[in-house]
Amino acid sequence: MADWLAALDRRAELRAKAGLTRRLHPRPADDGMTDLAGNDYLGLATHPEVTAAAAAALSAYGLGATGSRLVRGSTDAHQALEDELARWLGTDGSLVFSSGYLANLGALRALVRPRTLLVSDAHNHASLIDGCRISGAETVVTAHADVAAVAAALAAAPGRPAVVVTESIFSVDGDLAPLTRLHAVARRHGALLLVDDAHGLGVTGPAGAGAVAAAGLAGEPDVVITATLSKALGGAGGVVAGPAELVRHLVETGRTFIFDTALPPAVAAGVHAALRLSRAGDGLRDELAERVALAVGRLRAAGLVVSAPDAAVISVTAPGPEAATAWAAACRDRGVAVGCFRPPSTPDSRSRLRLTVSAGVPRADFERAVDVVVECAPVPARDTEVVA
Amino acid sequence: MADWLAALDRRAELRAKAGLTRRLHPRPADDGMTDLAGNDYLGLATHPEVTAAAAAALSAYGLGATGSRLVRGSTDAHQALEDELARWLGTDGSLVFSSGYLANLGALRALVRPRTLLVSDAHNHASLIDGCRISGAETVVTAHADVAAVAAALAAAPGRPAVVVTESIFSVDGDLAPLTRLHAVARRHGALLLVDDAHGLGVTGPAGAGAVAAAGLAGEPDVVITATLSKALGGAGGVVAGPAELVRHLVETGRTFIFDTALPPAVAAGVHAALRLSRAGDGLRDELAERVALAVGRLRAAGLVVSAPDAAVISVTAPGPEAATAWAAACRDRGVAVGCFRPPSTPDSRSRLRLTVSAGVPRADFERAVDVVVECAPVPARDTEVVA
Ligand SMILES: Cc1ncc(COP(=O)(O)O)c(C=O)c1O
Ligand SMILES: Cc1ncc(COP(=O)(O)O)c(C=O)c1O
Repeated sequence: MADWLAALDRRAELRAKAGLTRRLHPRPADDGMTDLAGNDYLGLATHPEVTAAAAAALSAYGLGATGSRLVRGSTDAHQALEDELARWLGTDGSLVFSSGYLANLGALRALVRPRTLLVSDAHNHASLIDGCRISGAETVVTAHADVAAVAAALAAAPGRPAVVVTESIFSVDGDLAPLTRLHAVARRHGALLLVDDAHGLGVTGPAGAGAVAAAGLAGEPDVVITATLSKALGGAGGVVAGPAELVRHLVETGRTFIFDTALPPAVAAGVHAALRLSRAGDGLRDELAERVALAVGRLRAAGLVVSAPDAAVISVTAPGPEAATAWAAACRDRGVAVGCFRPPSTPDSRSRLRLTVSAGVPRADFERAVDVVVECAPVPARDTEVVA
Repeated sequence: MADWLAALDRRAELRAKAGLTRRLHPRPADDGMTDLAGNDYLGLATHPEVTAAAAAALSAYGLGATGSRLVRGSTDAHQALEDELARWLGTDGSLVFSSGYLANLGALRALVRPRTLLVSDAHNHASLIDGCRISGAETVVTAHADVAAVAAALAAAPGRPAVVVTESIFSVDGDLAPLTRLHAVARRHGALLLVDDAHGLGVTGPAGAGAVAAAGLAGEPDVVITATLSKALGGAGGVVAGPAELVRHLVETGRTFIFDTALPPAVAAGVHAALRLSRAGDGLRDELAERVALAVGRLRAAGLVVSAPDAAVISVTAPGPEAATAWAAACRDRGVAVGCFRPPSTPDSRSRLRLTVSAGVPRADFERAVDVVVECAPVPARDTEVVA
């Protein structure tokens, strides 16, 4: 295996030839960019109450949690956050993980029993896909948002435990899963429904409680919610929320819970402050919805191919991976940060810009940034006939 | 599946009957406990320079990184930390993940090519086991620290790419893997060596650069180091360090790197400050070594069965899971926090107390805490004939 580095190099060259090179662009604290790429939907990451709460916990507890949750890692800050998350989401209980990724791995594994069938949407996030994989359960991938396909998969496995696995607001195109119908189908077949509400939490639902709450499904005994605390809540960490029995099961057996250092207490405290602001943030959500409509209108008016966003994620089709990269670079040169998604990070083979709207950006900057995206668009992007 | 909650309850009852119930004990900021359970080996989690660096970054950047590393999540703070980690560890490059768990999942997957064989030590951490699993590669588990078994496994797979996977300081018993011999065997067979240096980093090696550096293996082209930033460095996050080609490969293809929100900049900055203190911390490491020797001496003198620690983790055998729980509870009642490890969190079927030594605890408190552990020991623990 002396040649393994050469093999890695060859693969890097192949990616470069396909226009799929990725580079890190570390940013300074104040980079003067207008952000159409981050997930700080409500602008809470820099809210003074959030940073003050985190700073206070930092001096009280120190930086790290110093251990896993069952050893020294559980603090009052974690407990308070978990209690309020459950109240907000409308579930029996909740459990905080160090990331949304590990929350998904933990939740999926916990839900799998012998012979369990997982039915997973084709557009699901990498962490859900990896969770299905690590659980060891047989997994059927159904076409995106295809309730009939889910029903057929469940009907083909009578008598077997099953879990339907979906995002709420899909992270690449920003569309909402048919949650009510998925739940009805799951219930009819005695299956569970696991919903990753990463991009719904704080953005949609009553008092921002997310897309599951909006669908009236929170607190149902056959529904499990996962989410990250890093998007509308402006921090980091993940959560699994659902029946108390599940929370207990995760505490006692969840590998990604037990064998992982707890979220830093300062982050838990900061997220807790963001949760309160988010709960009271209907004004921010109204502003957000208005901005999404404005952006979609302007992008479409310019002839661009735009997804139909149900929350604050907008996807704009690019003619190909190189064009997407060039488009994003042109925006960056004009002070606008946009997401650039290319295969294999896209659920289909299409490249696109991914724009995320935040209520925290000054309104005038936001509008100018949308114009910049339009002005930098490569000419073929304005056609509907795009190259895959 | 209407009965799934009942099924979870039944499993909880079975665990309770076997003495394997686990409960969270959230702690207040100042709980007055003497800590023999956390992993803050050098006491840096609460060091004023560490919390000051984190607080400064918190006001400069806000709480969360607001996106994944390739989107908005990479800041100057991440870059500076990665550069200094590589210099310290003696590798070409390094890449910071949001946890050590996700670093291990990412590293293992990245190292696997078609037909790769993974050779994994029986005592490896859950995150390494899960990494082997998620990689999809065939995995042979070899007896703990058994170099001949590793050689045999490699010899049985001639011409196949292979990776030998081990911890440096094993997290439950605190013993050091035979790194030099493992590397020699790996090299002879053209295999890679992946070492999780979670419990070695900051604690052993030249300027605290860890057990891989201590073995003279850092910077070798066939060695990959992973670690968590949550133990001696007092923060949170994980790192993969090794050849530049590997770092590039992870940036471009690592799922747990790409599809995960970046470590909060404030945590990166705090860990960076801890790194500098740790590098200059020979005095702390001398104190730590002295305390470990003192604790082992007192525990053995009292007739307890104690592991042979190579760093700052000490394992003390308990007569069984209930006895371990009661022992830990008795210590807690007397103001001493100890780790209580029972199956399935132990690599064998034995329950034990796991004591971690920190140079950050006042010396007199530390010595008193060791005495408390001795005084609370159940009588059968003093025999060498322990029940499994
Ligand atoms: C839908 C979805 N699930 C899970 C995650 C992972 O959460 P985290 O970044 O906290 O690991 C993300 C994004 O990061 C996401 O978009
Ligand atoms: C050996 C080892 N590897 C990996 C990890 C995981 O690191 P993290 O807690 O940062 O996820 C730990 C402990 O938490 C560990 O002990």
